[in-house]
Amino acid sequence: MASYNVPALAKLIDKFESLPGIGSKTAQRLAYFVLNMSDSQAADFAKAITDAHEKIKYCSVCCNFSQEDMCPICKNDARDKSVICVVESPRDAMAIESTKEFSGTYHVLHGAISPLNNIGPDDIYIKELLARLGDDTVKEVIMATNATVEGEATAMYISRILKPLGIKTTRLAYGLPVGSDLEYSDEVTLARALEGRNEL
Amino acid sequence: MASYNVPALAKLIDKFESLPGIGSKTAQRLAYFVLNMSDSQAADFAKAITDAHEKIKYCSVCCNFSQEDMCPICKNDARDKSVICVVESPRDAMAIESTKEFSGTYHVLHGAISPLNNIGPDDIYIKELLARLGDDTVKEVIMATNATVEGEATAMYISRILKPLGIKTTRLAYGLPVGSDLEYSDEVTLARALEGRNEL
Repeated sequence: MASYNVPALAKLIDKFESLPGIGSKTAQRLAYFVLNMSDSQAADFAKAITDAHEKIKYCSVCCNFSQEDMCPICKNDARDKSVICVVESPRDAMAIESTKEFSGTYHVLHGAISPLNNIGPDDIYIKELLARLGDDTVKEVIMATNATVEGEATAMYISRILKPLGIKTTRLAYGLPVGSDLEYSDEVTLARALEGRNEL
Repeated sequence: MASYNVPALAKLIDKFESLPGIGSKTAQRLAYFVLNMSDSQAADFAKAITDAHEKIKYCSVCCNFSQEDMCPICKNDARDKSVICVVESPRDAMAIESTKEFSGTYHVLHGAISPLNNIGPDDIYIKELLARLGDDTVKEVIMATNATVEGEATAMYISRILKPLGIKTTRLAYGLPVGSDLEYSDEVTLARALEGRNEL
């Protein structure tokens, strides 16, 4: 839709539209909202973007986002360094962290093996993970990659490397999502839930 | 949700979350997307925000957004200066513009009269509209404020001021939205559609 030849506005709408899940109507709404902000609010917003880019890098240990050389989780002595939970992205680590059930450390691969998209084992942070297994600190590696073909392939690939090293490798359980209706669950999930049944 | 004590990331998520219609999950997704941009893309995005704020002001005639003193529509000699379409916001003007059915000019009020929110006639750009009616150029003022209580009140208020000036004042038609089912339309709309019926 035309934005009346106001190039700066058109550009801002365009930038918002380039974000994932933001359509043209929403992009317009956001751009107008930003225009109606005070100058200092807008400057703050812009600064948050550049700041995030300048200040955030990867943790030298787990490759998660961090503002310092080592992220707060890797630095925290209370976290169990003998367990590494391997995830595809920082958001996955955040999701697990929000369960408050995990006290080990993470390793962020920043992707998954996907031959279709030309992403091989060397394109994600697998060697950084292997480098962490040098001494005998690590007892268990939990593969918490996505339950997709790519995530599954990545988990299998890594577990095959780890097997000869004698490190216990586990995978997140498949099964029914909590709160779900049996009749609406797909047959693959249901089959896995049956297969992985536990004694009460 | 915690963002692992990465303050720059937490701040960026927070900024996105302050936008309308953006919840915490979406804000996270957007922030991570921005983090994965190249440095120049992120700088571009930030610049688009500050640029929009610095460069865009109100058109001196119609109060719509403009990068110059006069907006392209007011400057355009092909537009009919005898008709002014009064809207609440620049987005409304954009919506009407996108119909490609209107060749007159606009006037943007930047709000509507709303006593509940302490917005009176002096808080929106009504006197700028009246200033445009000084000479005899303007023959018709179309009230295209929203079909809400506030929009309706604003339209009534302005039309009462214009009546003594002898300027024709019209209001957008109420009726069924095109493509809608009669059975799902509310009774007020249906009553207005009946009332405003046209001969075939």
